[in-house]
This record gives sequence, C-alpha cells and structure tokens, in this order.
Amino acid sequence: MDYYQRIAKVQEKLRRKKIDAFLVSKPENRRYLSGYRGGDHGIGESSGMLLVPARGKVHLLTDFRFNLQAEQDVPWAEVVTYPKGLLKLLGPLLGDLQITSLAFESDYTLHSFAGKMMTALARQGIKSVPTDGLVEAMRLIKDEEEIDLLRRAVRLNEEVFTEVYHTLSDYPTEIDVALAIETGMHRRGAEAPSFSTIVASGKNGAHPHAVPGSSPVEKDASLTIDMGLILNGYCSDMTRNLVPGTADKQYRQLHRLVRRAHLAGVATIRAGIKCCDADRAARHIIADAGYGEYFGHSLGHGVGLAVHEEPRLSGRSSKKLQAGMIVTVEPGIYIPGWGGIRLENMYVVRDEGCENLNSDTTWLDI
Amino acid sequence: MDYYQRIAKVQEKLRRKKIDAFLVSKPENRRYLSGYRGGDHGIGESSGMLLVPARGKVHLLTDFRFNLQAEQDVPWAEVVTYPKGLLKLLGPLLGDLQITSLAFESDYTLHSFAGKMMTALARQGIKSVPTDGLVEAMRLIKDEEEIDLLRRAVRLNEEVFTEVYHTLSDYPTEIDVALAIETGMHRRGAEAPSFSTIVASGKNGAHPHAVPGSSPVEKDASLTIDMGLILNGYCSDMTRNLVPGTADKQYRQLHRLVRRAHLAGVATIRAGIKCCDADRAARHIIADAGYGEYFGHSLGHGVGLAVHEEPRLSGRSSKKLQAGMIVTVEPGIYIPGWGGIRLENMYVVRDEGCENLNSDTTWLDI
Repeated sequence: MDYYQRIAKVQEKLRRKKIDAFLVSKPENRRYLSGYRGGDHGIGESSGMLLVPARGKVHLLTDFRFNLQAEQDVPWAEVVTYPKGLLKLLGPLLGDLQITSLAFESDYTLHSFAGKMMTALARQGIKSVPTDGLVEAMRLIKDEEEIDLLRRAVRLNEEVFTEVYHTLSDYPTEIDVALAIETGMHRRGAEAPSFSTIVASGKNGAHPHAVPGSSPVEKDASLTIDMGLILNGYCSDMTRNLVPGTADKQYRQLHRLVRRAHLAGVATIRAGIKCCDADRAARHIIADAGYGEYFGHSLGHGVGLAVHEEPRLSGRSSKKLQAGMIVTVEPGIYIPGWGGIRLENMYVVRDEGCENLNSDTTWLDI
Repeated sequence: MDYYQRIAKVQEKLRRKKIDAFLVSKPENRRYLSGYRGGDHGIGESSGMLLVPARGKVHLLTDFRFNLQAEQDVPWAEVVTYPKGLLKLLGPLLGDLQITSLAFESDYTLHSFAGKMMTALARQGIKSVPTDGLVEAMRLIKDEEEIDLLRRAVRLNEEVFTEVYHTLSDYPTEIDVALAIETGMHRRGAEAPSFSTIVASGKNGAHPHAVPGSSPVEKDASLTIDMGLILNGYCSDMTRNLVPGTADKQYRQLHRLVRRAHLAGVATIRAGIKCCDADRAARHIIADAGYGEYFGHSLGHGVGLAVHEEPRLSGRSSKKLQAGMIVTVEPGIYIPGWGGIRLENMYVVRDEGCENLNSDTTWLDI
C-alpha cells in the first residue's frame, strides 16, 4: 500500500482547510493511512492514534502495551508513547510542533473526551476542529490493489464456508457450526472474523442478527449462515441459507423469492445509479409477493477495511454509486415463528455493471 | 437480578438531579439495568438504548434487527423500534412523554451524535445533559449475587485453562492454543471471550497485548496465556505464564519475582487502602530487583460486566478500595528480545483483606 501517497493526500486536504494537524482515532482510518494493526478494546481503550501534521512527519501516539507493535508496523512514523494518557502528551507535543489548530474525528471521539481535549487545548491557544469523513471519503472508492485484497478475503471466506458446508452433519448445534467456521478462518490465516458469525436454525432465523446458541441444527429446517473474515485488514461478508435435509415447498418458494430479489437488485448496480434504486428493485419483488413487511432492513452496505461502511444501499439514500465502490446485496425475509432467509454476496461497482466477488453457487441450487 | 430495584435507584437519582429521563447507551449499563443482551457492532452500531424516565415505564429503543431479542430479554419494558434511526424516534417520543430534560452518557456517546441530538432536542425545548458514571457508580460495588456470578465465570475460565494446559502439546502454534481456548469457552457455555485471547510464546511475550500468530509454541521458552470469558454477562480475566518444556534459571528467577510482586500487591488489598498503595507494593518488589523499567502498566483493574472497569490499581489513583469491589492483580515484566511474564488473578475486596476468586495453582509450582 502506498501510505506515503495517502498521507500526502490528507496533508493536502489539511493545508486547503488551513488546519495544522489531524488526529486520527478510527481504527480503519488509522490502518488505511499507516498500516498500523494495533487492536483496540472498544472506543474507550485505543491502541493508538495517528497525528498527521499538514507538513512534516506523521506521529503514532500509543501506550506502553503497543509500543513494539507500532514500531514494527509503522517504522516510518515517529512513535511516541503516553505514560499518563493521551491528553497529557498531546498538549506539549502540539506545542513543540507549533500546531495551532487540530482536526479530530467527531464521529469516533467520545463526547466527554472531546470536551476535555477542546478545553485543554484552548488553554494553549490551540483550536480543535471537529471533522467527519475526511479519510472515509478516500476509502469509498477502492483501487485495484484494494479490490484484489477484498477478492482474496472473499475467496478465503468461501473456502471456509465450503469446508463447513460439506461437513455440516459433524456439527450438531448452531454454536458448533459457528465455532467450526471461526476456527477455519483462523487456521487459514484470517486475522479475525469481521463480525460475530451468525448461525441460526429454524425459527431462530427470524432474528436477522441471531446469536448462535445451543439449539440443534434442525435437519429439515432453514439454516442461515452469515459469516465474514478479515484478511490483510480487508473484510468479507457473505450469507447463505440452506436446508441440511429436505427443503419443503414453502422454503423453496421463499428461497427463490429472495434470490429473485437479490438478482433484481444486482441487475441495477452500475456507476451512476442511486443507492435507493437498487434497494427499490429488490424490495419491489419481495413486496409484490406479499412479504414486504418481513424485509425490514436495507438492501446492502459498503465493505472495505470496515465490514459496514459507506455507501448504504438504503431506500433513503439518493447518493450515486461510483466505479470502485464495493457493496453487499443482501435481501432477506424474516417471519416470526417460522424463520428467515437472507442471501448475500459482495459486488464491485463498475462503469457498465458490477462484478460479483463471490463464486460460491450453492445459493443457486435450490 | 433485581432490575426493578436498580431502575428505581436510577430514577431516584434523576429526580434528585431534576432530570426527566436518561438515555443509556453503554452496553454494560444497559445490561446492568435491564438484562438486555443485544450485541453492538462497535459504538457506531448500537443494538439499542434504554430510555429511563424519572417516573414511569422504561423504554427500550432498538431497530428491526433486534426487536425480537429485546422483547424476549426485557418483557417488562416498552420496546420501540426506530425504522429511520434513533434521532427521528427520540424527538417525538420525548414529546409524547412530556420530557423536557434528557441525560445522556457523555463517555459513551460520539461527539458528532451528541451534537446532532442536542441541536435537534433544543429545537423542541428539550435540554440535553451530559452525564458520566451515573450507572458505573452503582456497578462499582458488587452484591453477593454478582460476586457469585463472577466466581462462576472464573471457575469456568479455569476449567478451560486446565483442559488446554494438560493438552498443550496438541497445539503447535500460538493461534492453535488460542483457538482451543476460545472453542473450549464456547463449548462450556460462555457467551464469548471477554477480550481477544492472548497467547505469546518466547520473545512475543514482550508485547503485553500480543496477538497470537502462527509462531510455534517454543518448548523451552516462556508462554503467556491471558484469557477471559463472559458468563451471564460477567467477565473473567486470568493470566498464566509457563514453560511447556524445561524452564531455565533466568525464567524461574523472573517468574518468582513476578509472583512475589503479585503476592505483595495482594497482601495490601482490603477495604480502605488507596489503589496506588497496592500498585506501589508490587512495583517496589520488581523495581528493587532492577526490573522497574520493564513493568510499564498498572497493577490491575476492576472487573464486572466490563472486563476493564473501575477501580484502577494505578500508581496515580488515590481512590480508596471498598468492600465488594473486584480487582485483578497482574504485575508483569516485559523484556524486548527475551519475552514477558505476567501473573493475574481476580480478587474480591473485603473488610479485612481480600478473597481470591481463582483456585488454579499452576502459577505456584515454578
């Protein structure tokens, strides 16, 4: 990755906005700009922040626990540790660097921390500038190197899925399936799952975000598997729905309905269309069949260093798709007391259509 | 759990502060007050918030995906879903409930969201009041029911550790050990690990927060295992350090040094002492032996519904311990190029001393 070019682009933006430096706290933005792989324990326990000055050297501010990792991952940055918390380091450091205005990520900074920081810096005559989306705007369009990393993440995801799919009868309960999947991810070199694997059998499938439990995998009922992994920082996200034993007529009808909705959504995707148009095309199919009230979420979302990012394929978004964006398409039907079906792939938006990053075809067999 | 009593206590606090309602966004606080188990995907994708009015019924605000879970977990609350985002629901709902002031959790609300909310509510004449620590203050002291849940979490943690400890040679790499541990946790009924399991062999142990990788578990080198799980919402956290093969003299000396520091810290713990005194007692032992610079973090932290919570056993904290607090004690030595040793148990602070929640004694055998 050309971190130098990405940093240069941020620095240019800062100079244009006449801001002296930018404090990057969001883990995906930090990784995008530097490759730093430190893991946070939630927003309250950061493994470090990047300080990008409008001119000059990038600093990586971290604590004792992540010092070595920071130096390994970002040898070209100045790694500075804060023994007494970030705020105590920040004031003097910004003073030394003669910084008089600091942008921070308003959508990844806690209200209480922002308040303390703004007060402390104001005392030094430093202005804090809340910003949103400065790096996200750069991450929105993926270059071919990133698309290739996403392709590899999807491929690994499918390898894991295929292995578990062919040995499904080895796993008696939902949690056994989920563990087999997450273990498979790690063994094949994934950094981590990109979200908690969803495995929902029968009625449990009516929860779109079901937590796999000790429920048995029912032989002749619907089974939802929604799984994603992180490889080289980039995420995959895929959902399959199947019946381990014999699918009844209702299941086959609903599965085909969701698939038709999926393919109708995909058929609209190309650079220039509005996000809401893709959502509408898929929703139309499901609503026409009388199941509109059972499809309660948006059609899809962007994927990259974050598993959920812009753009949102939502009925409320009139934003236009651009070539190089990556989106999921994942219509679903969730019927309380019966179960649910969702079918999800990842697509690259191209000028003339879209490219399916998935090659698994099990969802076409029903 | 007596959620009714906890809610009543919050409502009393609100009435005393003359605030009409409280929006609870922090997952642990939400669970403490209601038992709701919905899982968030980071701070940006909440599975719901509690709205606790100073008088009247608690509302659980969530979206379509978590609706069923919310109704199952918190049948006594009014579950309200927001099809168009929380902000669009909040204004009209607060209007209906005739709420004119709303407290929110400043240390678990994003700066950007807080800004939008404050602006939107101000237009309706509703005052937003940033608060910190209102529920955390209640969570600080655990009652015997909670202590028992923590004891069960620690016991399950040790069962998993013991199993892996006795089959260590089955796992050739760090990640194999970590996967065996996390699989063992799930199989034995844990909800999830309370943090990403740390397994670090040899030199990797010099990173206090090492990420387990494909490095082999070296037979005659130090192996750090730091593991925790969540059971009934409550967390465990335990670190052991061992040599799978034959420990050399240096290892044995350092292990005993860390153990002496651990026990010196524990010996100070009882209701009434300052947090910094426990830290100092342990640090003193390590510094006297000439390793002070290699012990870069605090002695320990509180554990409960969150794996890291108040109190902090930090050299900078003059807060006093109280009976019913739960703390870890976990001194460590991290030597770049050599490795690291950390030994961690969980203790209940009592009036006359402290109670060790751990019963594993492998750390005493070296």
